[in-house]
Amino acid sequence: MFTIKVTPRFGDADGLRHINNIALVEWFEVGRNPIFRLFTPDLDLSYEKWKLILVRTEFDYIGQMYYGEDVEIRSYITRIGNTSFTIGHEAWQHGELKARGKAVIVHYDFIEGKSKPISDSIRKSLEKHLIKVDEFTGETPKDKVCK
Amino acid sequence: MFTIKVTPRFGDADGLRHINNIALVEWFEVGRNPIFRLFTPDLDLSYEKWKLILVRTEFDYIGQMYYGEDVEIRSYITRIGNTSFTIGHEAWQHGELKARGKAVIVHYDFIEGKSKPISDSIRKSLEKHLIKVDEFTGETPKDKVCK
Amino acid sequence: MFTIKVTPRFGDADGLRHINNIALVEWFEVGRNPIFRLFTPDLDLSYEKWKLILVRTEFDYIGQMYYGEDVEIRSYITRIGNTSFTIGHEAWQHGELKARGKAVIVHYDFIEGKSKPISDSIRKSLEKHLIKVDEFTGETPKDKVCK
Amino acid sequence: MFTIKVTPRFGDADGLRHINNIALVEWFEVGRNPIFRLFTPDLDLSYEKWKLILVRTEFDYIGQMYYGEDVEIRSYITRIGNTSFTIGHEAWQHGELKARGKAVIVHYDFIEGKSKPISDSIRKSLEKHLIKVDEFTGETPKDKVCK
Repeated sequence: MFTIKVTPRFGDADGLRHINNIALVEWFEVGRNPIFRLFTPDLDLSYEKWKLILVRTEFDYIGQMYYGEDVEIRSYITRIGNTSFTIGHEAWQHGELKARGKAVIVHYDFIEGKSKPISDSIRKSLEKHLIKVDEFTGETPKDKVCK
Repeated sequence: MFTIKVTPRFGDADGLRHINNIALVEWFEVGRNPIFRLFTPDLDLSYEKWKLILVRTEFDYIGQMYYGEDVEIRSYITRIGNTSFTIGHEAWQHGELKARGKAVIVHYDFIEGKSKPISDSIRKSLEKHLIKVDEFTGETPKDKVCK
Repeated sequence: MFTIKVTPRFGDADGLRHINNIALVEWFEVGRNPIFRLFTPDLDLSYEKWKLILVRTEFDYIGQMYYGEDVEIRSYITRIGNTSFTIGHEAWQHGELKARGKAVIVHYDFIEGKSKPISDSIRKSLEKHLIKVDEFTGETPKDKVCK
Repeated sequence: MFTIKVTPRFGDADGLRHINNIALVEWFEVGRNPIFRLFTPDLDLSYEKWKLILVRTEFDYIGQMYYGEDVEIRSYITRIGNTSFTIGHEAWQHGELKARGKAVIVHYDFIEGKSKPISDSIRKSLEKHLIKVDEFTGETPKDKVCK
């Protein structure tokens, strides 16, 4: 599992004085950095080197988050397919799970314009971060892509 | 169905030179304005008048969108429950469906801190925008909340 | 002068229930689209075709703007130099000037990594949108780059 | 001087594959958190407790920043007036100054709707972070508000 701390920005709070949903989407994207590095270690964005495209995201807003205290973003792998994989995300504030999310990402060649199988070596790297059961709640992982 | 046009901003394109997922989240949020007005006609954000809280969102990125051409955002109701309802969203560019999404929203009293049943009069307003079958693709609506 | 309408998004309002400064920065960037098209008509972002880099921005928040009513963004040229030019921006809501801004942009070759003189033909296009005196307030244009 | 580290998000890079100007605006806003705490220690956003309003910002983009490496944001006070003060900001990446900025903030009572003198005790707190000469470049501080 990959863990980062993010500090809410003044404008991340919206008119209801809680964190707006856009901030969460951004925080989960930052949380994906170390997973992106498994594919492109220097995070070079050229079509020659970048190999991932986002195809689906989901977000569950479980509790309100507020400006004024850091948020911990936890990210892990919940599914590894042939050409795609799923990342699970959690946001914790004040020691409580405040939001959960998922991102389905396809291994993609931007020059050829098509998906590619994930190599064995990267698959092994992803497997090290695979979480089958939610270690915090004991819940069965919500790792199935919603159809 | 509610339809708006949005104009991509230079920075909405990311390093892959397609529209970043954050922009879509923002555009769908703008698309919800007319639905929000059914509950709070003047969009006043005070706790006395604002009555909605977002509890879940989903996004499917079907095709890449690009900077340089307007995007049409279509929004409609796909489910009306006792205290919550679901909005369906679509993003179209160059006459093609590029993304789809969903937002589950709870009718909520911020002063009491609890959900409230949707009134009959608002329910009737929402029903006018209810779409049971996707009128563009003919697909069964993906309006069931993913568990 | 170029004029566009933007519709505030729910999350553009911050905890003070007025429009956050980030939204204004984004709206002015959208307002630059037609000026960008004078240099790159199809807004293609490749290094071969995109020729502009932002070097300075300024923003004056004159009055508070609110969620719930459209904002008009007015953009025009206030200075044309050898390799750079300055754009003036205004945001109007409820018929009142709520914010003013400026963007200094350099004509830049991303492949060679250096600035380039603005061609005569583009200079003529820019001059059509040059405003020497503020036509709304009568003020002398604040078009001098602040040192 | 207040220093924070920010980690660029994938989507903070724009089509030119450098950091978009919006990210810088957001990072400087996060950098203001410890200064905001001098006025409202718990960062409570209610009109009773929040006492600051932004009236002007400036940004100089000195060098391009890129996705893939953290950015250091340095913030300090450059001017303390009767009812307002100015914050200076810098963004450093790879040990180089990449951007500079300024934010003019007014001490403001949102309930009465007018500016208020800064108290002596807060003035003393601000003075501890006052920088008259840029300690990194030796330049005279650019703390005069541009007219």
